This record gives sequence, structure tokens and C-alpha cells, in this order.
Amino acid sequence: MKLLNNSINIIQWEPLRNLCQKLYEAQGMPPDEAFLVADSLVDADLNGVESHGVSRMSIYMKRIEENVVANKCSIKIENEFPGGFALNACNSMGIVAGVKIMEMGIKKAKESGFAFITVSHSNHFGIAAYFTRQALKENMIAFAASNAPSTMAPWGGIKAYLGTNPFSVAIPADKELPIIMDMATSVVAQGKIIMAAKTNNTIPEGWAINKEGAATTDPKEALEGTVLPFGGPKGYSIALLIDILSGILSGAMFGPHLNNMWNDFKNPQNVGHCFGVLDISKYIDVNIFKSRIDQMIREVKEAPKAKGIEEIFLPGEIEYRKSIQRRKEGIPVPNVIYEELRALAEKWDIPFSI
Amino acid sequence: MKLLNNSINIIQWEPLRNLCQKLYEAQGMPPDEAFLVADSLVDADLNGVESHGVSRMSIYMKRIEENVVANKCSIKIENEFPGGFALNACNSMGIVAGVKIMEMGIKKAKESGFAFITVSHSNHFGIAAYFTRQALKENMIAFAASNAPSTMAPWGGIKAYLGTNPFSVAIPADKELPIIMDMATSVVAQGKIIMAAKTNNTIPEGWAINKEGAATTDPKEALEGTVLPFGGPKGYSIALLIDILSGILSGAMFGPHLNNMWNDFKNPQNVGHCFGVLDISKYIDVNIFKSRIDQMIREVKEAPKAKGIEEIFLPGEIEYRKSIQRRKEGIPVPNVIYEELRALAEKWDIPFSI
Repeated sequence: MKLLNNSINIIQWEPLRNLCQKLYEAQGMPPDEAFLVADSLVDADLNGVESHGVSRMSIYMKRIEENVVANKCSIKIENEFPGGFALNACNSMGIVAGVKIMEMGIKKAKESGFAFITVSHSNHFGIAAYFTRQALKENMIAFAASNAPSTMAPWGGIKAYLGTNPFSVAIPADKELPIIMDMATSVVAQGKIIMAAKTNNTIPEGWAINKEGAATTDPKEALEGTVLPFGGPKGYSIALLIDILSGILSGAMFGPHLNNMWNDFKNPQNVGHCFGVLDISKYIDVNIFKSRIDQMIREVKEAPKAKGIEEIFLPGEIEYRKSIQRRKEGIPVPNVIYEELRALAEKWDIPFSI
Repeated sequence: MKLLNNSINIIQWEPLRNLCQKLYEAQGMPPDEAFLVADSLVDADLNGVESHGVSRMSIYMKRIEENVVANKCSIKIENEFPGGFALNACNSMGIVAGVKIMEMGIKKAKESGFAFITVSHSNHFGIAAYFTRQALKENMIAFAASNAPSTMAPWGGIKAYLGTNPFSVAIPADKELPIIMDMATSVVAQGKIIMAAKTNNTIPEGWAINKEGAATTDPKEALEGTVLPFGGPKGYSIALLIDILSGILSGAMFGPHLNNMWNDFKNPQNVGHCFGVLDISKYIDVNIFKSRIDQMIREVKEAPKAKGIEEIFLPGEIEYRKSIQRRKEGIPVPNVIYEELRALAEKWDIPFSI
């Protein structure tokens, strides 16, 4: 660990992942599952998505400790058919359930060409791109989405009804980087506002409104109010759609009926997800597909730029570059998170060697 | 026809649809296919989506006359598998191809639970909701998307690369109206800018930039420049995704390689689409699903509203109300479009009785 200033510590990713894995193992999680959760969190930090990184360690561990999340993963098949599954994640950790479900989806897509899967009784599943990237090496396109506790009003409203309901799609390329989109349907993920509140920073106007419906730059006021959908009514529609496919169709909770991860330690969340996996080879020759994707990527990169723009990015490119840099240089961890990790290590009697 | 003022005529929808159908029949289109195209265009006008209504008659007919669009529909199955199809629309009218393909998708989803279909060698398919609504009576959720000639720069760019690539999703309800989203991935459909240019109106700032990348309210300047994606980089990502699934994966054209409907009368467009159909009954009891959708709709409608907001809408509700009103009161058709229709009727020797 290198102390940059009072508030930021630079941590190497492998010792960090190792610490997180050991902490989950101390809670009785099987080592392979503990690895997945630790790996997803550190991966988020490597990619610059700190809102879904090790800042989630304390809440994830608290929910396992309080017995509102299972420390071992099991998946129940409610229904199976050629085009997919209806699954029940049995209150497993969302990250572990998601990885196992993507494996089922990849197998199913190999047989059927396309698999669409709904999942009920799950929990927060971290960054959605962690799952969609699993399909890239199989030459498949994958989609993952989840509902989330309500933090966003319907368009025109002021009371939270929808979650920030994120989704990711990953598309393989040949020589170029894969295209990996991963976005919240709010202007920003609520995790970024939680992070700003934790680190005593302000937030830009346009991210959220307070409980009276007025614009705010105070993350604490924003957390009492609601976040705004991206693109106004269009983002609101997409958030609604994700809640319908992840929550209503799966049999999970939806809208404000989804239990809150942060303040309800009596009830499982019953989060819903949905996943789609598409086997490219069933639709078109894989080499043709990948060379056309490469062509698109190169053409976009070479497109004429607006004044002041140095480079045009494909989805996932900024995150990829950040992960290369942070693997080499380390991950900046705010002191408040660093101290949370130290306290967890002490509590669970794990050497704090990061 | 009732003349409101110099520029707007109020036309009853049935005679209008009848006129359009007869015009296509005069071009050798089979009556059932001519009906579908006419019905989709008038349906768009009824729903208030005039950019995709009878204002498209002259360009659709011109392309058939110039032999760059086939006047009879045929669909070739390139590949079939349990989870979908890879199809070739053989340069058919996009509207007719789309209706027939949705029928294939519904049949496939009944067997497999989910069908995902790609389509190459197609043409402009009108409003996407025309297809997704087909699945509602089967208790299915449907998705439809298409690429389109390039009018939108990648985020940070100033030269058109992507189309406004629209998509629609329709979700059945029980006692409430179905939820029907239908949106361009640009701030507005380019058709609205074309319509403003045709009717000599200005456009709001934020819809488009001119060819130098500066904001503009002149629709003619906007048509030389590029439209903007909704929600900035997020809308750009979604437009990219739709082009990948509709264009690259199907084997159709993509990005700026897609031929322009308005000024290229030598080459077929080779537009690509994709469709998804989901049989709800495979995932969850249909009655439970529909009653949960009703609950969501009612809760959203009753949610506390921001100051100045009289009502919160679900996707498709505004369009539905407009269609009820216009079925009763007639469709306002700008004089320039009215005269285009009169000229077509004269040319093809069809009685102009609207």
C-alpha cells in the first residue's frame, strides 16, 4: 500500500482480491465462489467502476452475516425449454449465481442459437459486464440486466419507483477490442452517489433531484430524493422494461417492492435478473461477423471529430484502458473504504496484507 | 376532407387507408400486402407519428417504380434453429416482411419459449410498434429493431455514421393498456426533421447539429449535418448495438454502407432488422404476469407528480389516446402531403376520394 495523501491509498489488485476472497471464505463461502465475488469487485475497481468495487465489501459481508443472503450458491430450475430457462437463485450471492447462470446460458445457446433466461430470488450482482464478458471466448453475444431497489421516479414523478436497472451487452471482435457496454438506466449509477456521500464529495447537477423534486448537488440530499433517468422519458422506458423482464417476468420483486440492500436486514432482497446469450455461428459465419465488427470499430475510431475531442471511444474502451493501467499501477482506494477493509480483516481474523 | 387552414387538411383514416392500398395495388402489389403497408402508414398517422405516416407514400412508391424495392414479398430462410432464424427479406417492402416474420417468430416462440430473428436485404419498415403489437394477443412480449441510413455521428464525432436505429417493445397487460415503447435512438426520429423541412418549420435546439458540428434549428441544415443520440454516449451505444444486431449479424449493410432511401434509386437499401418474441407462459403463469403488469401500471399512474405535471404516462399511452381521438376526428394532413397524394392518385389513375 502506498499512501498518496490523507484520503487515497494505492493498492495492488492481486493482494486486494486475495484479501476479499479470504474474508468471504471466513464467512463459510466455498473458495471458488469467494474467488468469484472478490474477482468481480476488484475487476470493477480495475475498470474504474469504483461504485461496484471493494466499496461493497462491508454491505455484502453484513448481509451474509445477518443471514439475509446465502453463503453458498444454489440454482433451482423452475422451467426449461429450448429458448431458455426460468430460474430461481435461492437467495445466492448475485455474482456467483450470475456466473453459473451464464454457463447454463452458453450451453443452451450452443444447442438452440439463442437463450433468454429469467432469474428470481437473487441479490445485487455487481457489474453486469462481469457476466457478458464470459461469452466472448465462445464467440457469443451476451446480455445481462438486473432490477435494483427503487431510487428513480417515473418520468414526471418525484418519488422513487424504479431502480437504476443496469444492463450490459458484450460483442466479440477479431483483432480489435470487444465492444462492451455496461450502463445504468439512470444518468449515473446510484453507487456513484453513495461513493460521493461516503467520501464527502458533491455531485454534478443533473444526476438527481431532492425529495421535493428540486435539483441538488448534495449526495446525501440526492440519496433522500431520486436519481434521474438518462435521456428523460426514453431512459425511463428502458428502466421500466428491465424491471418487467427481470422482476415481473421472473417472479422476483419489482419497483418499490424490492427490498433495500442497505437498510433491510430482515428480508432477502428478491432481486430479479435476465440474461440473453446468442451463438453468432447460428446466424452468420463467425469470421465474417468479427471482421465486420473490426471494420465498424476502425471506421468509428477514424471518424471526423468535433472541436476539442481527441478521440472517439467504443463502449468498454475507456474501462479496458483503465484496467491495464491499474493492473500495473494499482487501484486508488479512498481511505474510508481502506479502513472498512481493515476493520473487516480484524473482525474475521484475516491478515491485512494489502 | 375538411380544410382547416391553408396548410392542414383533416382526413378520415379509412378513406385514407383505402386510397393508399389502391395506389400500391396499381403498382402490382398483392391486395393483402398493399393493405399492410397502407395500414401501417395510416396507423402511424393515427398514433401521432406523422414522420412514419402517409408522408412516406411518395418515396415508397417511387422506390417500387424505380425497381429498387420488390412489389411482392418473399422471405428466404438462411438458417433455422430452435432459438430463431436468420432470414433474407429478398428486397421486399419492410412493412410486409416484418409482419410475416413476426408470424414466424410467434410460431417459433410457441415451440421454444424465445425466438430471436435477424433479417437482411430488407427496406424501411415504418413504425416498429406495428410488429411488436402483433404478439400482444398471443400473450407474448415482442421486440423489433432496425438499422437505418446514417444520420447520426458516433459520440464525439461530427460525420453521420449510425442511423437513428429505432426499436419497439410491446408488453401485454390485463385490464390496463399494454405497454408499448417505440423510440428512435436519436433525440427524435429523422422523419420529424424531414417533416419539418417539408412543412417549412424550424426544429428545437438539441435535436441536431449542422455539418460543422454547431447547434441548429434549421431542418435543412440539420439534414446536411447529423442528429444527436438520446442521452449522449448511452444512446450512441444503443444505436451501435442495434446496428450490430440488425446490420452486422444479419449480413445486411451497416453504418454508412447502408444505401439511402431518399436519393439512391440504383441500389436496394439492404436494411437489416432484428426481432425477438418471448412466450410469457414458458416463464411464468400468464395471469400472474398480467396482473403484476396491471399493478405496476396503476402504481406508476398514481405516483406523486412533480410541480406542473398533470399526469404520468406509461410508454404507448399518449399514442393510444391520440389514435382514439384521430379515429373519431380525423387525421391532420399538411397540405404539401395532401398534394403529393393527389398527384399520386392522378398519376396512377385512382379516384382521389379522401
